[in-house]
Parts: sequence; structure tokens; C-alpha cells
Amino acid sequence: MTKLIDVDLAKCYRLLNHGPTVLVTSAFSGKQNVMAAAWAMPLDFDPPKMLVVIDKSTYSRQLIDASGEFILNIPCRAQAQQVLKVGSSSGEQADKFAESGLQAVPGQSMAAPRVAGCIGYLECKVIPEPHNQQKYDLFIGEVIAAQADADVYSEGRWHFEGHDEKRSLHYISGGAFFSIGEQFQVE
Amino acid sequence: MTKLIDVDLAKCYRLLNHGPTVLVTSAFSGKQNVMAAAWAMPLDFDPPKMLVVIDKSTYSRQLIDASGEFILNIPCRAQAQQVLKVGSSSGEQADKFAESGLQAVPGQSMAAPRVAGCIGYLECKVIPEPHNQQKYDLFIGEVIAAQADADVYSEGRWHFEGHDEKRSLHYISGGAFFSIGEQFQVE
Repeated sequence: MTKLIDVDLAKCYRLLNHGPTVLVTSAFSGKQNVMAAAWAMPLDFDPPKMLVVIDKSTYSRQLIDASGEFILNIPCRAQAQQVLKVGSSSGEQADKFAESGLQAVPGQSMAAPRVAGCIGYLECKVIPEPHNQQKYDLFIGEVIAAQADADVYSEGRWHFEGHDEKRSLHYISGGAFFSIGEQFQVE
Repeated sequence: MTKLIDVDLAKCYRLLNHGPTVLVTSAFSGKQNVMAAAWAMPLDFDPPKMLVVIDKSTYSRQLIDASGEFILNIPCRAQAQQVLKVGSSSGEQADKFAESGLQAVPGQSMAAPRVAGCIGYLECKVIPEPHNQQKYDLFIGEVIAAQADADVYSEGRWHFEGHDEKRSLHYISGGAFFSIGEQFQVE
């Protein structure tokens, strides 16, 4: 069983600072969905804000537009196949959780589900910016809850040594990923 | 001598898709500067657009506001120490190229310089969005020229095997970085 720790909101940007691919989850009126997004990053420290690009053609967009909420789930190497699956199909006609084998578990602060087995979670309320949303498919979310897997995140830092299957994923294209590599320090 | 290849603009998002930390270069009226930014990512495919967060307090911000241009340079592991240096000092009083040991070389399409020895370059014209720039320090740039190091980028993909010193950098905090890791394929 994964042990999650709360992440200090003022430092939760560190979950995304190194550029991992995320899974975006959303829910509205009894429907839920999950999609993959390589285009997500921090925008501000405190209050913490995140950016994510959510295409108009996606079912997730409908749910997020309706609910004003989403969760950025940070998947890991063990989940790469499922991440690819939910990045290449639509949830309008099918249940992408069932299709992909990913498991939905309750979010901490909103109706959107979390994806079980991810290494980090950023639960976000949309800060409405209609021009960005319409013109660029760009969403700003304020983070209201953040947690991470205690095996690979503690004291405000990722540390993946000894946990290769929990390394973050960084999508390339065509089903190819990088996993995050060696950590090193400079002065 | 690094051999650079032109990157097809419609696929240049792939230079940033895996989330590397970048160096932002800028120039105006005979002045130039370089800063580090972990918060940069693609926004759109074609015409290609990139996002980057440029704080109001930085000297680079003055140069970018005045010139409407910037270059996202993708540094590599061999440059980590210099990346940290230009991420932790201001260019208003000092020449950060001279201070850090990074070398400025001419850009292809604009006055902003490139940083020699980087593995990729995205030369961007600011798409003016005053609200985003003022409220969020968020800049949208349309990419007008893109090149990458032929040793580690070809046929629209990064491939770092055998070139560990040219692996992309992914900043953590406090002088700690990840280099990008193993590439793998799922179906």
C-alpha cells in the first residue's frame, strides 16, 4: 500500500519542477475521466498555481469546464503502458479507467478522482481566464491540496534511488518515454 | 564543434515535450542577458508556440519587454554548474555570460544570442498578451527558428544513449538537478 504524505503547498511546485508528464482527472455530475498531458508546469509559488493545456476536443475539457476543477496526477514508470492508453483514446464513449486498467480512487478535496498508484497529486481549482481557455486551451489551476508517495518524495524533494519503477515519466512521442535519470548536485 | 540540424517547426514542440530546464536569452539596444527557467513548455503545435515564466524582477524581463523576442536554449549536463550560476544572479549590474563562463553566439533570426554548447534552440517572437504578462509573468512565444544538436537529436527525436554529458537537465532546487534517464517504448 502506497503511503502518501502531505506536501507543503508553498513548495508543491517541486512536484512538477522537473517536467514530468501528468494524468489529468476530472468529474462532473456522476461522470469522470482521465487523460494524459505532457504540457503541464508550475506557474507560481504561493499561492501555488499550475498550468495545463486541455484541448477543446477532449471529453476532459467538458468535465473541467463544467466543474471548474481537475487533479494533476503524476504517474510513474510502472504505469507507462496505461498512460499511453489514456493518451490515445477519448472518454466520451468509453470508461477510460476500465479500458486502461487504471484505478480511480477518491480525491482529497474535490469530486475528481485520483489515479491509484501515482507518485504525486495536485488538486486544482480553475482560476477562470476565459481568453486563455478559448484561444489557447490553456488552464490555470490553484493548488488546494498536494500529496506525494513517501517512498520517493520527502523533505521537499524527489529521490528515486532504489525505486526505478516509481521514476517519473517524460513523454517523447509514438509510445516512447524517458524515465527521469540520475540526480546530482552542483555548487 | 557541435553540428546543428534544423528542426521542422511543426515538430519543434518535441524539443521541450519531456520537460527540460532551459536558458532564456534576450537582447535589446546592445545589451544582452541569460537566465535559467525551469518553467517553460510547449503550448501549441503548428504554428508552434511555447510558454515561459519570466519574473518582473529580472533584467531579462526588461530586455524581452523591449525587444519582443527571446530564445529558449536547452542546456545539457556538461553545463549544469553554469546553469545554476545564471539562475542565481541578476544581469542588470554584471555580464552573466562572462560571470558564468557561458559563451554567447549569434542567434539565427534575432538579436538575442544563443548559448554555445546547448543541445537545442527555439527562437521565439512574443505573442503579446498583456494580461498574462502583467498578472502571471507568463509569456507566449511563437517559434520562428529551431535547431538541435545532431549528436542527440535526429528524425524528430532525442536520443541520448552514449552522450551522457549531453543529456537534458531537469532542475529540482538548491543546486540539485536530474539528468534525463533511460528511453523506453510501450505499446
